[in-house]
Amino acid sequence: MDLKGFGMDAVDDADKLPETAINEVTSFFESAPPLTDAAETEICLKEFVDRNTSLSGINGKANRVVCVTSGGTTVPLEKQCVRYIDNFASGHRGAASTEYFLKAGYSVIFLYRRGGCQPFCSLLPDDPLLECFTVADDSIIEMDPLHAETVKKAITETRAAVADGILLKLPFTTIFEYLQILQLISASLRGLGPSAIFYLAAAVSDFYVPWESMALHKIQSASGPLDMRLAQVPKMLSVLRNEWAPMAFYISFKLETDKDILLAKADMALKKYKMHMVIANELSTRKEEVIVVTEQEKVTVRRDSTQAGAEVECPLVELVVDRHSAYIKKVDA
Amino acid sequence: MDLKGFGMDAVDDADKLPETAINEVTSFFESAPPLTDAAETEICLKEFVDRNTSLSGINGKANRVVCVTSGGTTVPLEKQCVRYIDNFASGHRGAASTEYFLKAGYSVIFLYRRGGCQPFCSLLPDDPLLECFTVADDSIIEMDPLHAETVKKAITETRAAVADGILLKLPFTTIFEYLQILQLISASLRGLGPSAIFYLAAAVSDFYVPWESMALHKIQSASGPLDMRLAQVPKMLSVLRNEWAPMAFYISFKLETDKDILLAKADMALKKYKMHMVIANELSTRKEEVIVVTEQEKVTVRRDSTQAGAEVECPLVELVVDRHSAYIKKVDA
Repeated sequence: MDLKGFGMDAVDDADKLPETAINEVTSFFESAPPLTDAAETEICLKEFVDRNTSLSGINGKANRVVCVTSGGTTVPLEKQCVRYIDNFASGHRGAASTEYFLKAGYSVIFLYRRGGCQPFCSLLPDDPLLECFTVADDSIIEMDPLHAETVKKAITETRAAVADGILLKLPFTTIFEYLQILQLISASLRGLGPSAIFYLAAAVSDFYVPWESMALHKIQSASGPLDMRLAQVPKMLSVLRNEWAPMAFYISFKLETDKDILLAKADMALKKYKMHMVIANELSTRKEEVIVVTEQEKVTVRRDSTQAGAEVECPLVELVVDRHSAYIKKVDA
Repeated sequence: MDLKGFGMDAVDDADKLPETAINEVTSFFESAPPLTDAAETEICLKEFVDRNTSLSGINGKANRVVCVTSGGTTVPLEKQCVRYIDNFASGHRGAASTEYFLKAGYSVIFLYRRGGCQPFCSLLPDDPLLECFTVADDSIIEMDPLHAETVKKAITETRAAVADGILLKLPFTTIFEYLQILQLISASLRGLGPSAIFYLAAAVSDFYVPWESMALHKIQSASGPLDMRLAQVPKMLSVLRNEWAPMAFYISFKLETDKDILLAKADMALKKYKMHMVIANELSTRKEEVIVVTEQEKVTVRRDSTQAGAEVECPLVELVVDRHSAYIKKVDA
């Protein structure tokens, strides 16, 4: 069993000392607005993980649970929030990946941005209710035949996954909610050791306004420009990786618009946060291909363009599952 | 006919000189990214207004067209937009008001935030497709009886309004798109004189990053805090009111979290921008009541709490229609 680099060992120059990081995280949480429904979320998570660890291994994937995060976090600029900074992210990557993880026999905790893309719904039009249905004269609702299969699939598969207890959907909006729920999830998955994956596809804010220094009321637009100072969000990934669930398999994502710095940053994230895989996305081509960066290799994963509707998440999740299986074997050896 | 205050007359101390305002607006538009589909939007608008001015007056409301704006505008922080500032606004006010204007015999141009609330859909659950339907064993889609009436109403009424040519829906996302489309709408409604209403319920950003000074690529999160300087969005309302469509009936909205400054700001907006009505909303009570501020009066409008599902927009639009009728009479006298 090789645990080199998994624990609290020496950090490279680019790293802050773990203790500083832990202090920053502690003070971030202490100053955050309390999470509503924290107790209910904890119970849901416990039940979900208990049920899934007792499953007798569909597809030989017993105990395997992946936490897929999806969509962008917001940063409120006022306590009674009128204005906020948002990150562009449709949530498509996380939603589509959730489908492929479920197909591969994993249970999925889907931590998603409220209103963002949902699994099994990627082929639906923007406003499915208004676009897929018509009301006939006898006031019976009819489905547009063009969308019939897509709609059926969306409804049936979502319901089945939730009913089977293999999909747990947890919504967030702000950076505070996201990190608080992620901490709860990590606590519930810690006991699974290497069987758990964190697949961190959400676009998490780098900067935020600390809650205690935030304006209570709406910022007034007096004359002149507005100067804002935003603090850096503490590097929660280090703490999650090293402290909260140190045996899990970690995949993070880098999105950049400039290809030149993309791979350099992916490499840096791999080392700095000791990720097992970093998925490098370029904004303009991210639906066609991604580059999977590991310690050993850089693999370009492309969608199967010969097949209509084929998504890059299909071969991507296949690769992740393959590497995860190898990781479990290695740790258990 | 009383046109005092409608044209380019003296402005109060708080105002900038109209010429300065016009220059600011011109330079805002010149530096904005070009609107995609501008030509198509102009044609749509022309056809819509032509059709509606030739209508022979349903409910005696011939020629009456209202432009309802709805939802928040975003301010991109990068040209290849990953991060942006957003304004909290569900778009519910504009969507619900659109329904009541249609019922009152008006034609409506609904300028809405992409993904925001839609008319006739306010009673639907968050994710109507997944929550309102089930797929039976014989793979026939069935509607949850609980939601049947709501779903039917949403689909039927939306389709009818669009098919009858009395509802034109135009989406926006950024502050640039919003103001560019609003300018096109004002050009198309200018000829209607006092029969047009601008019902400006959208939450428009006060601050923005000028396009030419914007970072091309994603802002890098180096160490340390992020300092941002945002410029004020030029006061487009003055130019719309005084230059683009000076004879129309104007209603703007003020949303504040602090009640003390709400009425003061509503009064100021009424005078500074020569609005005919300013609707004052307090964030916490805005679904229950609003205060309608005019030169003559302050009227509190409340939803009918004795009736299930009654909305404050119902009596609000009634009051607006009443005052608009009086305005048309006065101008035509």
